[in-house]
Amino acid sequence: MGDRMDTLIEEIKSWLTEAGKKIKQQSESLTVSQKNNRKDLVTNMDREIQEFLIGKIQENYPKARILAEEDGYNELSSLKGRVFIIDPIDGTLNFVVEGENFCIMLAVYEDGSGRLGFIYDVMKETLYWGGHDIGVFQNQSRLVKPKDQSLANGLLGVNSYLFGHNRFNVRTIGERSLGVRMWGCAGLELIAILKGQHIGYISNLSPWDYAAGNVLLEEFGMKYSGLFGEPLRFHGREYYLAGTSRAYDEIRSLVHSEGKI
Amino acid sequence: MGDRMDTLIEEIKSWLTEAGKKIKQQSESLTVSQKNNRKDLVTNMDREIQEFLIGKIQENYPKARILAEEDGYNELSSLKGRVFIIDPIDGTLNFVVEGENFCIMLAVYEDGSGRLGFIYDVMKETLYWGGHDIGVFQNQSRLVKPKDQSLANGLLGVNSYLFGHNRFNVRTIGERSLGVRMWGCAGLELIAILKGQHIGYISNLSPWDYAAGNVLLEEFGMKYSGLFGEPLRFHGREYYLAGTSRAYDEIRSLVHSEGKI
Repeated sequence: MGDRMDTLIEEIKSWLTEAGKKIKQQSESLTVSQKNNRKDLVTNMDREIQEFLIGKIQENYPKARILAEEDGYNELSSLKGRVFIIDPIDGTLNFVVEGENFCIMLAVYEDGSGRLGFIYDVMKETLYWGGHDIGVFQNQSRLVKPKDQSLANGLLGVNSYLFGHNRFNVRTIGERSLGVRMWGCAGLELIAILKGQHIGYISNLSPWDYAAGNVLLEEFGMKYSGLFGEPLRFHGREYYLAGTSRAYDEIRSLVHSEGKI
Repeated sequence: MGDRMDTLIEEIKSWLTEAGKKIKQQSESLTVSQKNNRKDLVTNMDREIQEFLIGKIQENYPKARILAEEDGYNELSSLKGRVFIIDPIDGTLNFVVEGENFCIMLAVYEDGSGRLGFIYDVMKETLYWGGHDIGVFQNQSRLVKPKDQSLANGLLGVNSYLFGHNRFNVRTIGERSLGVRMWGCAGLELIAILKGQHIGYISNLSPWDYAAGNVLLEEFGMKYSGLFGEPLRFHGREYYLAGTSRAYDEIRSLVHSEGKI
């Protein structure tokens, strides 16, 4: 990797560390508001962290474009050029009520291809990061690509609605795994796959929920797509599937597209 | 609390610390076997930790009786006298495939009343403990009783089968909460209630899964019982409900007993 990429990586790491500190210091003065419904929350901290990261990007990379969860940045007509994709707090509900099990995510894409991905577990102070031809790291340690486990031999992260209503056969698929888990944080679910703790994840996500994780999954030869095998749109919410190569293929063959919304 | 109780607490803490070290040191040489089905696992470590704890109890409290998960100790005809209730590894599946999110649990009951409860999150080296008229602690810090939150304002831990099949209305109940979580470890789910992270937990449990947690819940004035309000039997598996006082009452009024097995 080039010097410029090295510099970019170090910059992003320092932004994320600073953002994590802000969250820890100020989490006692939270203002919580509802977005689309009572379960879809946003806090002053989500907005503040997004502003902070956007400020850093605009200061250092004024030509780059930005796709981010909160107001005014949540749509891009294309992924041309360099695009930073940000989720200031992934797992806002966990952040508000559990005070842990949330993360900050940032991805760098170039002309639609994932180059760098960062998932920062703030409370554990653990940064998962890496990129195309760079590898995948947990803080300073290189992660080893886990075994290509099958659906029947691993735990599967699922979205509660899809599982609870057996939409697209997701409950049945979950019951073929060793067990299902619901952690309420896409970033941590994708980290679990990267670490070999889980074999897959099925959910309903926005681009900032999967952008960083996909870069890391790809580096490990793992698979992801829309739930029906289609390319992800990076636009609005969509049904999402990721997994070890083996579990992904097995799940794809079990997904029923009937009842597709 | 008396000197004898103080001594007992210190002894149990030292046993759990030693047991946690054994797990960390030896978890690379695991032998995994199936118990009742492919999802119900036991390892040499479950057996070894149970033997270690039973050895300590028999050495120091030869008259006490023991109820514990693995072979030969999993039934008692009554809870008369002093009974130690042990789950050597709660969340065995997490232990085997995630390498974290499991705990050791130990409870002391006297003539059927909970006196002491210990839930040790081994990988985080965090011990939650306390008892009747003693309080609830996280390592050395006293925990403050959380707010009495309602179902609609909190996260609910659920069992995947009950939720996925809406048995006893559990899916509908889950959908009235802010969100459901499945962590795969009863001890950690009960800790989440004690810390105010979750408002309740609905599952299908054995005595060693709830014995320690119930002592701590009771000390905080929280509620637990069988899912239909009946007293727990401390014998075999049973449907279990725990929660803040408010969420417990709300959930009880929403449980449908039709289809009760």
